[in-house]
Amino acid sequence: MSETIETTPGWFAPTELEQVRAHLPIVYVQAVPVRVDAAGEVVSVGLLLRISPDGTIIRSLVSGRVLHHERLRDALLRHLEKDLGPVALPHIPASLQPFTVAEYFPTLGVTPYHDPRQHAVALAYVVPVTGDCSPRQDALDLVWFTPQEASSDAVLQDMQSGQGTLLKQALAHAGCLI
Amino acid sequence: MSETIETTPGWFAPTELEQVRAHLPIVYVQAVPVRVDAAGEVVSVGLLLRISPDGTIIRSLVSGRVLHHERLRDALLRHLEKDLGPVALPHIPASLQPFTVAEYFPTLGVTPYHDPRQHAVALAYVVPVTGDCSPRQDALDLVWFTPQEASSDAVLQDMQSGQGTLLKQALAHAGCLI
Amino acid sequence: MSETIETTPGWFAPTELEQVRAHLPIVYVQAVPVRVDAAGEVVSVGLLLRISPDGTIIRSLVSGRVLHHERLRDALLRHLEKDLGPVALPHIPASLQPFTVAEYFPTLGVTPYHDPRQHAVALAYVVPVTGDCSPRQDALDLVWFTPQEASSDAVLQDMQSGQGTLLKQALAHAGCLI
Amino acid sequence: MSETIETTPGWFAPTELEQVRAHLPIVYVQAVPVRVDAAGEVVSVGLLLRISPDGTIIRSLVSGRVLHHERLRDALLRHLEKDLGPVALPHIPASLQPFTVAEYFPTLGVTPYHDPRQHAVALAYVVPVTGDCSPRQDALDLVWFTPQEASSDAVLQDMQSGQGTLLKQALAHAGCLI
Repeated sequence: MSETIETTPGWFAPTELEQVRAHLPIVYVQAVPVRVDAAGEVVSVGLLLRISPDGTIIRSLVSGRVLHHERLRDALLRHLEKDLGPVALPHIPASLQPFTVAEYFPTLGVTPYHDPRQHAVALAYVVPVTGDCSPRQDALDLVWFTPQEASSDAVLQDMQSGQGTLLKQALAHAGCLI
Repeated sequence: MSETIETTPGWFAPTELEQVRAHLPIVYVQAVPVRVDAAGEVVSVGLLLRISPDGTIIRSLVSGRVLHHERLRDALLRHLEKDLGPVALPHIPASLQPFTVAEYFPTLGVTPYHDPRQHAVALAYVVPVTGDCSPRQDALDLVWFTPQEASSDAVLQDMQSGQGTLLKQALAHAGCLI
Repeated sequence: MSETIETTPGWFAPTELEQVRAHLPIVYVQAVPVRVDAAGEVVSVGLLLRISPDGTIIRSLVSGRVLHHERLRDALLRHLEKDLGPVALPHIPASLQPFTVAEYFPTLGVTPYHDPRQHAVALAYVVPVTGDCSPRQDALDLVWFTPQEASSDAVLQDMQSGQGTLLKQALAHAGCLI
Repeated sequence: MSETIETTPGWFAPTELEQVRAHLPIVYVQAVPVRVDAAGEVVSVGLLLRISPDGTIIRSLVSGRVLHHERLRDALLRHLEKDLGPVALPHIPASLQPFTVAEYFPTLGVTPYHDPRQHAVALAYVVPVTGDCSPRQDALDLVWFTPQEASSDAVLQDMQSGQGTLLKQALAHAGCLI
C-alpha cells in the first residue's frame, strides 16, 4: 500500500513493528476525499501526488494505520488532517460501515491489493471535505479531479498497489463511476 | 406513515393521487436528522413533534414523496428544508445506498411499517445537519435527543407506523443503539 | 431500462400504466445473478441475451417492477424465477440494503441511467444462484462471464440504458471489478 | 470479546500474541448465523451456548481472529465451520462490506464493545446457513431463536462484551428488529 507517513510513532519501535507485520494483519483506514454539492453529489475527488523512490509520479488515497486504543473515527480524522492539513474540515461518516474492505497481501494476486511489506486490512470510506486542503508530509500536492477524470486510465495508471481499484470502488459506491 | 405535508403539489390532482395509491407502490425518502461531533459520531437525533388529529403527541422522522423526474438527492434536500427550515444545512450522503428500505403496507403485519393510505417504499438515510433548525409546516417543534433517549421506550412510544423501528435501525447503523 | 416482460398483469390496464408512468416514479428491483465459490467470492456473472427490435444483441440484468402490496423480496424472487427459470435457486439477501439505487430518467444525462418510457427507481442487489438456470420469456440465452469478462468493453457495449454502469457498480461492491 | 477457541495456532507463541495484543489492534471477523426462508427473510438466529469460568450461561456469536495472510472470507468460513461443524453450509456474502465494524476496547465505555485482553476490530456479517449445525469446541449447544426472541431482554442479558448490541445491529440490518 502506497502509505502515507506516520506522524505518531505508534507503540512499537520500528524494528518491532517490522517483526509484527510478518505475523499479523494490520488494521488500516483509507479515505477518498471528495467535494460534494448541496445535494451531496460528488463533484471532485482529491488525490495526493508523490514522487516514488524511483522517480515516478504516484497518486494515492489517504491511508494510515490504526493505533492501539484508537477508534477508527479518530484514526480517519488524524490521517485526513495529516495529509490534507488542519483546516480541511473532513466530514467523517456517521456510520462506520465502510464501502468496502481492501485486503492488501504481501503476495501478488491473492486480491487486487498488494503491499510487499505486510498484510493490511483497510476499511475504506468516502469522506467529503469542505475546508481548505494543503498537503503536508511527503506529498507534493493534492489534485482535484472530476469523477470522470479520476476514473480515466491516465489517472489510474499513476496509482499503485491496487489503489486504482479502490478508487473505482469508491466512485461506484458514490454513483459516479461511468 | 406519519407523513409530512407536501409543499409541492406534485403532478396529480389529490383525487388522482388517491386512485394511484391504490394501485402502485409510491417512492418515498426518509431522513433521520442528526448532530455529529468532529469525529462523525452521532451526539443527538432530531425528531419532529406533532399533534395528531385525535390530540395525541406524535414524534416523527423527516419523510416525503419523491416526485416525477426528481432525483432522490433533491427529494431528500427538499423534504429536509421543508421540515427543518432553509438554514438547517443538511449534509446529504455522497452515496445513495440507504441504511435500509422501509416498506409501508396498507395491511398491518406484513412488515413492521404500516400506512393505511398506501403501499410506500421508503429509502432511509441518516443525515447530519450543521445549521439552525426551525420546524416549519405542521410540526410544533423539533426536539433533539441523545441516542440513548431516542431509543428509550418513552420516546419510541410516541412514534407511529413503524417509525420507531426505523429510528432504531438508524441508530444501530450509526453504532449508537445501546 | 431494458426491462424484462411482466408475467403478472399488475393492477393496471396497460393504458392506465402508461398514464401513471408519466406522473410518478415507478419502483423496480434489479438483480445481478452470480455464481459464488464456497468462500462467497463471485466466480461468474449471468447476463441475459436478447435481440432488440432493431436486431442488435442486448445483454441485460434481471429487472422488473414491484407490484402493489408486493414485498421487495417477493418481487426479486418473482423476477429471478421469471427470467432464470423455476429451479435457479436464487439466494435473496437477508438484508434489503441495496448496493445502490439506480434512478432511470426519461431525460438523458440526469443520471447514468435512462429509460425513455418512465422515471424508475430501481433497488439493485447481487444475488447468488445455486440451481440450474434456463432463460424464459423473451430472453434467448443466459450467458455466464467471469468478472473480468463481464467488465470488459466487449460485454459492456452490449448493455443499454446504463445497465453497464450498474453492472460495474455490482462488481465493485462484490470486490471483483478490476 | 467472548471469543471462540482458535483451532489453528496462528503464527505466534501464546506469550508473543499476548505482547502484541498490548500494542496493536487485532483483526477479527464475527458472524451472526441465521436461517432464512425462500425470500431471504430471517426466520431464526443461532446463538452459541457456553458456560463461563464463573459458572454462568453465556450466549455468543461466532467470532475469531484473522490470521496472517488469511482472507476475511476464509477466516469467516473457518470460524463458522469451527463453531457450527463441517456441514453447516454457511453462505459467505458475495460482498465484504460488513453491516458494521465493532471496536472492542480493553477500556470500558469507549464503545459499546469491551474486551479486557485486547483492542479488537471486528468486521461483522450476517451469514445464512443451510446445513446441519452441531456445535464444536467449547460450546455446549447452538440454540435457534426467532428474531423476536433473540432481541428480548431474556436472551440479551446472557450476552457479554457488547455482543448483545452487535446482535441488535445485525437484526436491525436484516430488517427484523422489532
